[in-house]
Amino acid sequence: MDTHASDARTDRPPLPLIPVSDPDDPRIADYRDVRERDLVGRRGQFMAEGEVVLRLLASRGGADLVSVLVSQASLPRISDALDQLPRHVPIHVAAQPVMDGIVGFHIHRGILAIGRARPQLPPETLLAGLPARALVVALMGIANHDNMGGIFRNAAAFGAHAVLLDEACCDPLYRKAIRVSVGASLIVPTARAGNARDMLGAIRGAGFELLSLSPSGTERLSDIAPGGRMAALFGTEGPGLPPEVLAATRTVSIPMAPGFDSLNVATTSGIVLHHLAGGG
Amino acid sequence: MDTHASDARTDRPPLPLIPVSDPDDPRIADYRDVRERDLVGRRGQFMAEGEVVLRLLASRGGADLVSVLVSQASLPRISDALDQLPRHVPIHVAAQPVMDGIVGFHIHRGILAIGRARPQLPPETLLAGLPARALVVALMGIANHDNMGGIFRNAAAFGAHAVLLDEACCDPLYRKAIRVSVGASLIVPTARAGNARDMLGAIRGAGFELLSLSPSGTERLSDIAPGGRMAALFGTEGPGLPPEVLAATRTVSIPMAPGFDSLNVATTSGIVLHHLAGGG
Repeated sequence: MDTHASDARTDRPPLPLIPVSDPDDPRIADYRDVRERDLVGRRGQFMAEGEVVLRLLASRGGADLVSVLVSQASLPRISDALDQLPRHVPIHVAAQPVMDGIVGFHIHRGILAIGRARPQLPPETLLAGLPARALVVALMGIANHDNMGGIFRNAAAFGAHAVLLDEACCDPLYRKAIRVSVGASLIVPTARAGNARDMLGAIRGAGFELLSLSPSGTERLSDIAPGGRMAALFGTEGPGLPPEVLAATRTVSIPMAPGFDSLNVATTSGIVLHHLAGGG
Repeated sequence: MDTHASDARTDRPPLPLIPVSDPDDPRIADYRDVRERDLVGRRGQFMAEGEVVLRLLASRGGADLVSVLVSQASLPRISDALDQLPRHVPIHVAAQPVMDGIVGFHIHRGILAIGRARPQLPPETLLAGLPARALVVALMGIANHDNMGGIFRNAAAFGAHAVLLDEACCDPLYRKAIRVSVGASLIVPTARAGNARDMLGAIRGAGFELLSLSPSGTERLSDIAPGGRMAALFGTEGPGLPPEVLAATRTVSIPMAPGFDSLNVATTSGIVLHHLAGGG
């Protein structure tokens, strides 16, 4: 038995637990009235929810975290992950009714955390730093947080190197988008790339092959050979990518059944990334 | 110009429009307090929402429909689809505030319809009637209506012949599941197949190859050659398929990035069906 490791564990300083019994405690002001704060924004901060997301952040050191709020009931279940966090991150612990009173609704997951959004690189800088074989997701006008979260989840699952967003995309650090992404929108490198022309220019300038997904695409996804630097471009559900983007790029389609040519954009991204990552 | 066709169109009887001005009108009782009715169930009926779903039903003749409720503002936009419905299906028309008062919330889509759920065949009968090359989706314990709707949408998009549900699956005709499926759960043949053993027995008895999707699967999806009668089996998010099912079937995995092996089950179904339908 390695008693040294055992000793080292025992020697770790205790978790910086802070009991909270008053919903108006100023130390947990960032957690108050969560839904109203979703609407006004968190000015450079994000809110993460639930065990899976907190474990993901903790497994990467948790350097972005500002504080944690957990229910007393959830604390034992998540303690091993909390032990991985830097000791300067306070862990507020409240009884479930107090926690519900703070956030403004019943928070059955019992685990919340506030973090600092990482500064974003300009798209040109982000793309220039990627390897010679790289896979990038580029999004235009994705306005739905479920779809945004789903796309980031797929980007992480298939090892995409970055996600670029045009100016019309919604915020991937919105609370619901983070939750749906199971934390992926906190870890996949991201850049805002202005309008369609700016975005295509940045991607082409970095030597990426641009593939525009569209039901009217001229090439079949399965005929695309993965490799090199590739960027897969997705437009909003319904209208899809603008005609001028389709006209200026290779267009790729996914064959579907006659009479029902309708796929969710997040699902589409999963199918495309699975293929371009070499999986099928 | 084909004046005959033009005449025929003119000769169509007018739409059976019924103005409604009182939210308590007994003729629209089925539309009252929609959310409460979601909870208690609709006893063999379903509620469809929105233009896309109504157009899908109308394009197939609308024989399952019992009645329609549209806002005055939505009527012009949907009239051509309503014209495809049998004339015995009443079309209730209400001002937006009256419609909101009937359903109990602001129904911004402005289009609702009630239909009769189609009688389901036993799984053995459904499977026996499928062609020699057929693709079936089998679900165990899918409890989330978003995932259920997403899986049905993918089943329709990739031409799956049927969806089998075990006894632990939620109802694909729940209002939200229909909406997320963009109507697919109303058109893809479906059967309830009891517990896991019943389901596997029915699928094997019909000569289908069973493929269980799991992150621990021993074969890669891209190595599976599509063809013949194939059934793709999916379990609930989190726990996935039960060990005894994995032990009794071919297990298939989708390669993912190290440290983030997490895909949504609906997205997984899209990737699998795209491959098994011959798309990649």
